[in-house]
Amino acid sequence: MPRILLTIAYDGTAYSGWQKQKNPAVRTVEGTVEEALSALFGKPVEVIGASRTDAGVHALGQRAVLDIETSIPTEKLPLALLKYLPEDITVVSAQTVADTFHPRFDCVKKTYSYRIWNGKTKNPKERLYAAFEHIPLDEERMNAATKKCIGTFDFASFCAAGSQALSTVRTIFDCHVQREGDAVTIFVTGDGFLYHMVRILAGTLIQVGKGRLAPEQMEQILLACDRTQAGPTAPAAGLTLEWIFYD
Amino acid sequence: MPRILLTIAYDGTAYSGWQKQKNPAVRTVEGTVEEALSALFGKPVEVIGASRTDAGVHALGQRAVLDIETSIPTEKLPLALLKYLPEDITVVSAQTVADTFHPRFDCVKKTYSYRIWNGKTKNPKERLYAAFEHIPLDEERMNAATKKCIGTFDFASFCAAGSQALSTVRTIFDCHVQREGDAVTIFVTGDGFLYHMVRILAGTLIQVGKGRLAPEQMEQILLACDRTQAGPTAPAAGLTLEWIFYD
Repeated sequence: MPRILLTIAYDGTAYSGWQKQKNPAVRTVEGTVEEALSALFGKPVEVIGASRTDAGVHALGQRAVLDIETSIPTEKLPLALLKYLPEDITVVSAQTVADTFHPRFDCVKKTYSYRIWNGKTKNPKERLYAAFEHIPLDEERMNAATKKCIGTFDFASFCAAGSQALSTVRTIFDCHVQREGDAVTIFVTGDGFLYHMVRILAGTLIQVGKGRLAPEQMEQILLACDRTQAGPTAPAAGLTLEWIFYD
Repeated sequence: MPRILLTIAYDGTAYSGWQKQKNPAVRTVEGTVEEALSALFGKPVEVIGASRTDAGVHALGQRAVLDIETSIPTEKLPLALLKYLPEDITVVSAQTVADTFHPRFDCVKKTYSYRIWNGKTKNPKERLYAAFEHIPLDEERMNAATKKCIGTFDFASFCAAGSQALSTVRTIFDCHVQREGDAVTIFVTGDGFLYHMVRILAGTLIQVGKGRLAPEQMEQILLACDRTQAGPTAPAAGLTLEWIFYD
């Protein structure tokens, strides 16, 4: 059966994360996408997702595959799915891939963004897609700290309890901070991320930006391999899975 | 009694507009703000708002005044109100004004923005704060058209039925279009706006951007003083009351 790769964008606000849960009453993105596909094809369809985003986390470039024999041309699938999906989930594109393609194992890197609304007061239009920090963030300090995390390291200090990862070593290819007015965004690209890793990194960089940590301390925090050395876990709302890269 | 001017930001998605309605079950921003003020001060408080935004329309700089004798310092009001307001409404600032100050009559100009997500596919993170248009918009054409609306004109072509305005003459001080990636934003500043005026202007500029109207036709549309000559009313979600100016 042909394997189809979907690129999926969603507003994660209303979902208990990507991954389907045993209790079918728990609303997940994966479950909702499978329901839409099942309704379209008139039979149960399951997908394999690339990334298990947490509750409240968003995605512009999540990926999932399904195996299906259909007369609908692959490139028409996004349009065909439109009426079966809620407003907060969109299938952005669909393409046929080799039937050995695996969205998780074949991933070479992923980019996440973490957005912080750094205005004097809360901005209601930003609350669902950004963390709020009223203390002015110094993005140059933050950028100095991000440089310390680029490379291959044991990121145990940036891994929440409950992680099932066998190794806490990951490679970060790029990490940088950008300001546009009152919005500060952290972009991070790596070969993979541990449980809550980007949110702990964001929480730590916010501490650096506020002047509570020196950029150089990032090195010691990494070396400590101790979660208590890093900053707090930043809220889910600020996090977006931007893109997943394949060869 | 001292008169206090509040600057209010809100996500209008969940509200039937600013203005309080006879049916108290209808959720309005004004009603919600008054409830918060009444809870804070322990007695019924009414406000006078500056602008009657429609259902689903947002604001970063709405204004409202209240008359109150209180021991809370004016500048502490935003913080004091925080726990009485829902997440989608924020009092950004508070200042004491002359007791003759009127938020509507003393307004010299207002700026609205209208955001359009002009990507190939819908972006779930944009759906609450932008209209969606997949046909590429030519912002240079749109900017050529905006120039035709700057000045004092009879904007009857841009006024929805049901308007109670005595005159349809308004002055537009500035109108321009800006693109950042897939987001196209129209900014318009004027001495006042007719019912649905910015949304009809946006709907017409979108037609120009798509190539369905020539920028020069803007002039004829204005001269016609006929609502049927202008484009459709663009959806409420894209509209934000950015700021209200006083002398």
